[in-house]
Amino acid sequence: MKPTNKNSWRYRLHEIIYEADTPMGKLFDIILLILILLSVVIVMLESVRSIDLEYHKLFYVIEWIITIFFSIEYIARIITVKKPKNYIFSFYGIIDLLSTIPLYLSFILVGSNYLLTVRALRLLRVFRILKITRYIGEGNKLRKALVESRAKIFIFIFAVLIVAIIAGTLMYLIEGEESGFNSIPVSVYWCIVTLTTVGFGDIAPITPAGQFLATIIMILGYGVIAVPTGIVSAQYVRKASDDYVHVNTQSCSNCGEPKHRDDAKFCHKCGEELHPENNPEA
Amino acid sequence: MKPTNKNSWRYRLHEIIYEADTPMGKLFDIILLILILLSVVIVMLESVRSIDLEYHKLFYVIEWIITIFFSIEYIARIITVKKPKNYIFSFYGIIDLLSTIPLYLSFILVGSNYLLTVRALRLLRVFRILKITRYIGEGNKLRKALVESRAKIFIFIFAVLIVAIIAGTLMYLIEGEESGFNSIPVSVYWCIVTLTTVGFGDIAPITPAGQFLATIIMILGYGVIAVPTGIVSAQYVRKASDDYVHVNTQSCSNCGEPKHRDDAKFCHKCGEELHPENNPEA
Amino acid sequence: MKPTNKNSWRYRLHEIIYEADTPMGKLFDIILLILILLSVVIVMLESVRSIDLEYHKLFYVIEWIITIFFSIEYIARIITVKKPKNYIFSFYGIIDLLSTIPLYLSFILVGSNYLLTVRALRLLRVFRILKITRYIGEGNKLRKALVESRAKIFIFIFAVLIVAIIAGTLMYLIEGEESGFNSIPVSVYWCIVTLTTVGFGDIAPITPAGQFLATIIMILGYGVIAVPTGIVSAQYVRKASDDYVHVNTQSCSNCGEPKHRDDAKFCHKCGEELHPENNPEA
Amino acid sequence: MKPTNKNSWRYRLHEIIYEADTPMGKLFDIILLILILLSVVIVMLESVRSIDLEYHKLFYVIEWIITIFFSIEYIARIITVKKPKNYIFSFYGIIDLLSTIPLYLSFILVGSNYLLTVRALRLLRVFRILKITRYIGEGNKLRKALVESRAKIFIFIFAVLIVAIIAGTLMYLIEGEESGFNSIPVSVYWCIVTLTTVGFGDIAPITPAGQFLATIIMILGYGVIAVPTGIVSAQYVRKASDDYVHVNTQSCSNCGEPKHRDDAKFCHKCGEELHPENNPEA
Repeated sequence: MKPTNKNSWRYRLHEIIYEADTPMGKLFDIILLILILLSVVIVMLESVRSIDLEYHKLFYVIEWIITIFFSIEYIARIITVKKPKNYIFSFYGIIDLLSTIPLYLSFILVGSNYLLTVRALRLLRVFRILKITRYIGEGNKLRKALVESRAKIFIFIFAVLIVAIIAGTLMYLIEGEESGFNSIPVSVYWCIVTLTTVGFGDIAPITPAGQFLATIIMILGYGVIAVPTGIVSAQYVRKASDDYVHVNTQSCSNCGEPKHRDDAKFCHKCGEELHPENNPEA
Repeated sequence: MKPTNKNSWRYRLHEIIYEADTPMGKLFDIILLILILLSVVIVMLESVRSIDLEYHKLFYVIEWIITIFFSIEYIARIITVKKPKNYIFSFYGIIDLLSTIPLYLSFILVGSNYLLTVRALRLLRVFRILKITRYIGEGNKLRKALVESRAKIFIFIFAVLIVAIIAGTLMYLIEGEESGFNSIPVSVYWCIVTLTTVGFGDIAPITPAGQFLATIIMILGYGVIAVPTGIVSAQYVRKASDDYVHVNTQSCSNCGEPKHRDDAKFCHKCGEELHPENNPEA
Repeated sequence: MKPTNKNSWRYRLHEIIYEADTPMGKLFDIILLILILLSVVIVMLESVRSIDLEYHKLFYVIEWIITIFFSIEYIARIITVKKPKNYIFSFYGIIDLLSTIPLYLSFILVGSNYLLTVRALRLLRVFRILKITRYIGEGNKLRKALVESRAKIFIFIFAVLIVAIIAGTLMYLIEGEESGFNSIPVSVYWCIVTLTTVGFGDIAPITPAGQFLATIIMILGYGVIAVPTGIVSAQYVRKASDDYVHVNTQSCSNCGEPKHRDDAKFCHKCGEELHPENNPEA
Repeated sequence: MKPTNKNSWRYRLHEIIYEADTPMGKLFDIILLILILLSVVIVMLESVRSIDLEYHKLFYVIEWIITIFFSIEYIARIITVKKPKNYIFSFYGIIDLLSTIPLYLSFILVGSNYLLTVRALRLLRVFRILKITRYIGEGNKLRKALVESRAKIFIFIFAVLIVAIIAGTLMYLIEGEESGFNSIPVSVYWCIVTLTTVGFGDIAPITPAGQFLATIIMILGYGVIAVPTGIVSAQYVRKASDDYVHVNTQSCSNCGEPKHRDDAKFCHKCGEELHPENNPEA
């Protein structure tokens, strides 16, 4: 039963839940956003012992109210949408489900309520609600640039991992357990910490040979950081140049307007025909 | 009462305070700069206990002299400018006010005198005084590039925050309080420290699972650092090439030629007049 | 005796080992990959004491089975290839040998079995097996970009080292042994840790002068990180634009026109034949 | 008295010291390089207590031999050069002098012998000796790119410092002395450590407000790192494109060679005249 009848409650509910054109739809979306934010903040604050001790009951009640609201919303989305299956298995459908389950699970599994922070992903709806099509356009460009660079990025991560495994083993053999290089996996972890220039310092080489090898790893990592940057930069430069055309130095004989497209036959300012063959500069 | 009379004291004071063309104006500006620098240095030194113990009285006196000078200067700027309101609510007007208030406030609020370091912002005047229009040009280009990239930067920070919240929660669940992941907010803080490759190391994962997740976060952060760099690089490269113009999506109603210059009035192909106002896409 | 006879066992073995076109060849390659991965994982786990204590015997047996398999494979590769010397001294030939030796060595040298992680390099074969020519193309581009940038990268590392030696000596003189700057080599190590923005924090300046110098080093390192990135970005951007060709400095002997394509035989301006061999600059 | 006489000892000595064309000149340069390297290594090893205790006398003797050699070389350079003043006040002249003085000074000032590591700068001579004009070309390009970006880099560092002063003061007020933010200068130092993503971790915020502000500083620093990179990338891309020309799609009517320069009148392969006006694609 498709909600084609414009007056049916299903159609009206669909308008409110999925669209943001009507005042009711807008209000619904804004309330939704506030509840998502509130919910994420509460889950985060619950984990702070001192705050939780004082407001535990309040948090508990709000969590349940929000979860019940989200559950109703989830069911309403399924009922009002034309093809429920498409929604249920879409990115947002899965996120919406994952946003309610953890609290119900918390009866059985202690600590699972913290997984409610997955609700943060629901915040991505903000783009749809704020109708920032321009921002979505940017996001799409970004995603496209990343997708097109995926082969390069895959090779890059692969290379980083192989370097980290080899170098990590050497560091384990050189440094040993005294400086915290307890095992090869830990050494490999340290190598990645160093290659990515994060450098926690909880593990650090203390022998001269270890420090020498660390130096090589760091300079390598320093040079290597250039690679993904170069890849994305080049991708971006190329993407960016799609909106630009090359102009030359010929100027219009009528209005003197310079900088015409290479293939221009008429002046874009006054409409006069251009004569590139008479133009010494062209 | 506008200071139009060139011989009025207001006009002369305006020349000295706002312009740097006359010898007096230049002298005023240089004295101002030195006082700003001196003031910032003193506020910083005051916070070093050993230095403060010895020179407290000296610092106190200098601070007050400079503050009174700045207060007089602030009032003089208001009196001599044509439209006082414009100045008072301008960037520099607010900075100038904030540069004097904290010391007066220090009678009531202990420690507020440290806020005098906001005077550092007054140092931005150095560009005006040194008349480095070329540098200002560069600054404007930089600002323009940043403004044009703001949509991309907003999406980028938004994405970083969502990743940090999700990953931070997972780290909290995996590591727990033994390794310093005391709460989700602290874990999210640690995630941002790691994603940005700062890596203080005051908090660091110690369990194998935590270190594995940290590895993924680091490689992610390493790849992600390429994004803002690529954005600004592309923006800069485009800015650098003056031989290219931006084209939009409007198409000619006569020949259908797309991609016209933003300021085009006639089609460059057939000479037909363009009507951007009738173009839904423009 | 070359394996030219298509029915000879040598030819068939060659097909299986070196090619991935036949079902048997594909199966062989996939088994090989799994064994390499398994072997690397086992070497890593062996170094974790708690895991090793429990599964030592199992690991020992698997290690030997895989090593014997690899040894047989190595000999088979030598026998079936047309020019054994080319294989033995090729990159993969050396890696394949290094993948078997350490375990045999472990009878004499304790700990040398950890060097088996060099087998990780064998994982590079994955590219050949998965027939991802596209990925190899990307890898080649990457390698080419790096090779073409090697002069710039060499100068860059050279400059970083000289800065690190000078700055490291100064830090040693300023900070001394109290803050961990025990010797000049250690100080130089610290400088590289700082310049590359890794920043372990196991050694950190505590005197005001040391912190001031550290600030300069950090801002320097921050600016310097832009250099390798810029180099690779530019290299990539250039690679990306297929509409541009490289021109050299030779000039036409007839009309003096400079900047000809590297493969140009005639002047593009006057049609005169070019004589690159007579051109001292070319 | 200029050393114009080709047989004079001055001229011959000049050839040996300043040029690397004759066998004697080459030998001199190589010995010089080895001595510089040896000297730098010895100064570094001298600072390692355990090594110094054992080899102190040996190091002492070698240091003096090298210093006397360098002193003689310095005097010889002054005597044999045409314009001694130009040499003495040149970059290399000053470095050469600074390479000998510290050891003589060590009679008066204890520890000044460590300043001998300034000899590392003499290693820059390696470029001249190895005649790697290509590398010097790269170095010049690099220097030129940096010089042209100096206005942007100046503004950038200026902005970083002002942000660090303001944010450092706030961190001092928020965190206080308990977490190591002992004074504003230390806080500013910490801010630069964080903004540059070095992150030693010797000082780290522990209060929620401090960690929140730190988060903002880090994301700011993360975004800001893009700026110098973008600047240098754009500079490099521009520099790189000097050696490339744009080609279009017209093809030669005689040999079919495609991709000619936009302004080509003759085919660069066969010399045939090109007729862009007959070429529909051009």
